Amino acid sequence: MSQNIRVGIVGATGYTGSELLRLLAQHPHAKVHTVTSRSEAGVHLADYFPALRGVYDLSFARPQEAPLHECDVVFFATPHGIAMQQAPELLEKGTKIIDLSADYRIKNIDIWEKWYHVKHQSPEWAAKAVYGLVEMNRDAIRNAQLVANPGCYPTAVTLPLLPLISSGCLKENTPIIANCISGVSGAGRNARIGNLLCEAGDNFKAYAVGGHRHLPEIQENIQNIQANCPHELIFVPHLAPMIRGMHATIYLHCQNNPRKPLEDFYAHHAFVDVLPEGIYPETRSVRASNICRIAIEKAPGNDNMWIVLSVIDNLVKGAAGQAIQNMNIMFDFNETSALNTPPLMP
Amino acid sequence: MSQNIRVGIVGATGYTGSELLRLLAQHPHAKVHTVTSRSEAGVHLADYFPALRGVYDLSFARPQEAPLHECDVVFFATPHGIAMQQAPELLEKGTKIIDLSADYRIKNIDIWEKWYHVKHQSPEWAAKAVYGLVEMNRDAIRNAQLVANPGCYPTAVTLPLLPLISSGCLKENTPIIANCISGVSGAGRNARIGNLLCEAGDNFKAYAVGGHRHLPEIQENIQNIQANCPHELIFVPHLAPMIRGMHATIYLHCQNNPRKPLEDFYAHHAFVDVLPEGIYPETRSVRASNICRIAIEKAPGNDNMWIVLSVIDNLVKGAAGQAIQNMNIMFDFNETSALNTPPLMP
Amino acid sequence: MSQNIRVGIVGATGYTGSELLRLLAQHPHAKVHTVTSRSEAGVHLADYFPALRGVYDLSFARPQEAPLHECDVVFFATPHGIAMQQAPELLEKGTKIIDLSADYRIKNIDIWEKWYHVKHQSPEWAAKAVYGLVEMNRDAIRNAQLVANPGCYPTAVTLPLLPLISSGCLKENTPIIANCISGVSGAGRNARIGNLLCEAGDNFKAYAVGGHRHLPEIQENIQNIQANCPHELIFVPHLAPMIRGMHATIYLHCQNNPRKPLEDFYAHHAFVDVLPEGIYPETRSVRASNICRIAIEKAPGNDNMWIVLSVIDNLVKGAAGQAIQNMNIMFDFNETSALNTPPLMP
Amino acid sequence: MSQNIRVGIVGATGYTGSELLRLLAQHPHAKVHTVTSRSEAGVHLADYFPALRGVYDLSFARPQEAPLHECDVVFFATPHGIAMQQAPELLEKGTKIIDLSADYRIKNIDIWEKWYHVKHQSPEWAAKAVYGLVEMNRDAIRNAQLVANPGCYPTAVTLPLLPLISSGCLKENTPIIANCISGVSGAGRNARIGNLLCEAGDNFKAYAVGGHRHLPEIQENIQNIQANCPHELIFVPHLAPMIRGMHATIYLHCQNNPRKPLEDFYAHHAFVDVLPEGIYPETRSVRASNICRIAIEKAPGNDNMWIVLSVIDNLVKGAAGQAIQNMNIMFDFNETSALNTPPLMP
Repeated sequence: MSQNIRVGIVGATGYTGSELLRLLAQHPHAKVHTVTSRSEAGVHLADYFPALRGVYDLSFARPQEAPLHECDVVFFATPHGIAMQQAPELLEKGTKIIDLSADYRIKNIDIWEKWYHVKHQSPEWAAKAVYGLVEMNRDAIRNAQLVANPGCYPTAVTLPLLPLISSGCLKENTPIIANCISGVSGAGRNARIGNLLCEAGDNFKAYAVGGHRHLPEIQENIQNIQANCPHELIFVPHLAPMIRGMHATIYLHCQNNPRKPLEDFYAHHAFVDVLPEGIYPETRSVRASNICRIAIEKAPGNDNMWIVLSVIDNLVKGAAGQAIQNMNIMFDFNETSALNTPPLMP
Repeated sequence: MSQNIRVGIVGATGYTGSELLRLLAQHPHAKVHTVTSRSEAGVHLADYFPALRGVYDLSFARPQEAPLHECDVVFFATPHGIAMQQAPELLEKGTKIIDLSADYRIKNIDIWEKWYHVKHQSPEWAAKAVYGLVEMNRDAIRNAQLVANPGCYPTAVTLPLLPLISSGCLKENTPIIANCISGVSGAGRNARIGNLLCEAGDNFKAYAVGGHRHLPEIQENIQNIQANCPHELIFVPHLAPMIRGMHATIYLHCQNNPRKPLEDFYAHHAFVDVLPEGIYPETRSVRASNICRIAIEKAPGNDNMWIVLSVIDNLVKGAAGQAIQNMNIMFDFNETSALNTPPLMP
Repeated sequence: MSQNIRVGIVGATGYTGSELLRLLAQHPHAKVHTVTSRSEAGVHLADYFPALRGVYDLSFARPQEAPLHECDVVFFATPHGIAMQQAPELLEKGTKIIDLSADYRIKNIDIWEKWYHVKHQSPEWAAKAVYGLVEMNRDAIRNAQLVANPGCYPTAVTLPLLPLISSGCLKENTPIIANCISGVSGAGRNARIGNLLCEAGDNFKAYAVGGHRHLPEIQENIQNIQANCPHELIFVPHLAPMIRGMHATIYLHCQNNPRKPLEDFYAHHAFVDVLPEGIYPETRSVRASNICRIAIEKAPGNDNMWIVLSVIDNLVKGAAGQAIQNMNIMFDFNETSALNTPPLMP
Repeated sequence: MSQNIRVGIVGATGYTGSELLRLLAQHPHAKVHTVTSRSEAGVHLADYFPALRGVYDLSFARPQEAPLHECDVVFFATPHGIAMQQAPELLEKGTKIIDLSADYRIKNIDIWEKWYHVKHQSPEWAAKAVYGLVEMNRDAIRNAQLVANPGCYPTAVTLPLLPLISSGCLKENTPIIANCISGVSGAGRNARIGNLLCEAGDNFKAYAVGGHRHLPEIQENIQNIQANCPHELIFVPHLAPMIRGMHATIYLHCQNNPRKPLEDFYAHHAFVDVLPEGIYPETRSVRASNICRIAIEKAPGNDNMWIVLSVIDNLVKGAAGQAIQNMNIMFDFNETSALNTPPLMP
């Protein structure tokens, strides 16, 4: 089998960083070599994350002092804008990079700059980056040096769309409506009033109705599935009072029964589970796991409208788990390494 | 002003019954005279609902022994199938009835029987019943003897649709997609595993995707707004891990800007609040209150798709509060009596 | 009856401030005249608190520009350190002040300064302030110009201790152990990581085990109940994953049965409810209400140890509700005005 | 190393049963051979627990038809009263049994019968059973045929008491006060109104104040630590609105500093983590893991009172995890097998 590799994590104080740490502790062939944090430099991991006491003997290092160049692969678990500045230097030295931020997800730099309101710092690497939705791009990921790990909403929405669009199920020129909800961890580990237990708890709301940054990412995915795809995307994200979990309800106009193409496409993918008829997924059935469960059902009393339900754990298949799945493929490990613990229930 | 009236509540051990009790304690002109419960007959309200200690000096009575005939108005806070059996006797004696169950909501008895799987016991009263969505039927309610209090989803969805359909905003033959979520109290106070904190907590799911009983009720509302209304309804309910609250996200194809008709229609309704542009409602902003807040926004990147957001407290405007609003109108009280406490925040 | 009074609220953007606003909206004789906020000056209340849309037509004013001097009473809903600076000027002009912060709660200025780590700015007013635990100090409150509204833990713990200590139930020299838990709103509306839904949710912990600022406040209360009271206080606060609610479990060594003194003392207090034997309180039975419910039970298998359970809503009886109760007494209103809505259940 | 063993689980539809399934899926040397359920016989595990889709290819069998006799070890994850009837037959055939119920926990059968209100069916096996608190009885467990897996509260409370009592830290004749809280999963997967999200959510309460069944179990543990131990136990359990987690706050009168004995005792135990001074545990820091974290702190302003804080996941170290830890020892596996995944955070 494969030898051990050394892993670096840039920005490990947030939820995607700590989830990488949690999952990588189980990996048989990858060892976390260094973790960085500007604000917590010098602090031992065990002091910052009591849940990790006894798991790692590592302290946060300043980004510029961390031995990232000694790593075989570096994860960026940073807000957007960081990886595009720091990754190129490592990339040029041959380090593999998996960027969990949005920096390299969108090929069209104009669109990226429009939605992220900053100038892109390494458009040349954006062009070379492989979009890390494994079920769409497994072969390209195998040889990639830079993988742009997908956003959580794009993962939950694109996975069911992939076989449905590519098999020609959708009626021409009909809209794709993706009504999505996320647990609060999707907002990151930031001290914002809106994410306090007393504000987000026992509450439900839509947000970013006028336009969310994952909209252009899903739109680009749709175009990559089918060039000049004639389906407009309507996407409304919502916030639900839970810690983890993401649920997409997608409304599609189909010209033929979409169940079989969906089932066939995912028959041999380890992390996508198409549910039998009449069974609908719940987010907790994938809690803490890398699985995406998908159901499809005809809308009652309507001839061609279908309802697709898709659930992931936003921090696992929607972030850290998918990033490790990408790493496994890039280093020719078993695709499920560190990712085969069953979901946590209840 | 008006003299005091005597109120009876049939089936007061559930959430809509206890919510009637909570709200009616504040009513200046209505006094709860009797409450019934088969299972708790003889038990003092204060022993069953510790939150009501000191508020009422009443015990549950068996339905057949309760002095319901002494009441000016009787609320049925029962599962479907009870009111249609017990209400007619009271109605024939002249008692006014507000039925919070589904028994009298649907005029088409065939459709009702198809969805509720029992034979209707009083179709003649179903024909006379007034559907108690105040903003749609205020005048008819004023003179009604029997009011069918709307379901929670139908309330949240119909209130925004009412002015939008009647003003002709919608493009012909386009579907109305209502993606709705409810807090767990919407499932009632029943000992079911699925509603345990450990099952429904930290979880999100769709349910009844193949057809929910509120679908034909909303469909009938739409036909009542506009005869032969050519808009198919797609309705998917979801369960969110919160106690109270209901949120509808409605996707509409509009042929002209729907904001003004919406604002104009609700300019003078006490309990419907159309939010300014760019402000989206959250369920907690109406917690414990009878208010429905509605926002409307153009879908980004689409020419004629509009997104409507509508929130209510499912137990208040979606049940007990709306029932009291109906009572206020039937007895010529101030429409807001017992319903003017601000929402509970946080 | 009494004429209307004008109310000012300093620091109305937090949870105690917004709770004052929610409750005062129901007051028959008090009208909010001005609300201040340094950070939100100029913003309309309805824009800051969507739940208050249509309730108030007021905007936040800067503290120095707000017409506080036109008010009959001013509430300080500020962090500690503000009232002691700003209240004296108003007090000297004759305005009545109810301070919800800790500034005037402790008579011993040395102790206050030791626990709050700042120099007290108006010790002379601290000496004149009346501690606003109504059930202990009702007469003094009636004539007070400055009321120091008690902390939440001191309220939940002192209310049961008051009759038990004063009636001589406790065995000499035995400790009083108060194991307390609070909902997260007790931590205020501050953007701190520890209070995020993803950190405080589905979690339970003790905090400030080495010493919480409410310890000296409760200790002073105990000494005020009985001079040279020989009972040491052990107090450990905990954080529970809920929005509102406070629960105290108090362990007492009693030399005689404490039930009767407790029941007798509270027989005629509107907001303290001593539960019958075998009934234990839950926090939701007082949610959104000004009630304190208390139970007392002999510890199983022990001869003189008794267990006292006491619950309040930390934002109501533990803060804003008690402040309004104080105002009602100071202005000779009915003590329950604006405070008689039943608890919210579920 | 060791060869693979076959595992049976009796009563696998509850939370401790499903937690055994979740954890055993990771075990390198144990394979679940049969699972029983009276009510779900014939149903595939994947249909009953969607979270386990793809993990097991097993269906529930009726207890009498299940090949339990083919198993090397059988777990009873049943309510009390079942194992004492069904285990003896298997025990007599040589099968090893780990009983997660209370049937074999208490040696004194009179006391057991007094608290459980039924006649014990196999007192002779109760006499032979080893109490499976590993840190107390590791050697005896190694050779046990029947292990009585401890209750959740007894685990959280006894672990810190073990070194403190045995090292003589406690002042003679002083009481031990254990104020404990549990997440709602501790109440099992039973359809009871009190455990609904709408009843247990956003709520906190004490329960079983007059006497909980874990009281005699902890009392017996104390006597096993030190014969004729002169410390009375006061134990009050509480319910907190969370899914998993247990927190004990224990008040002790110490005659000498208890920190060192605690640290020394647990220096080499894999699953007990004594926290450094000033660090207090939170339940989520052990979520989904078999770890118990313990802190100890002197009560402020008191000469000999100490506060001990202890947290476990009630379903893992408080039930299924500890049961597997016992199995690992009984079969000479690595003690941490299947139990070394880091806690889930957030």
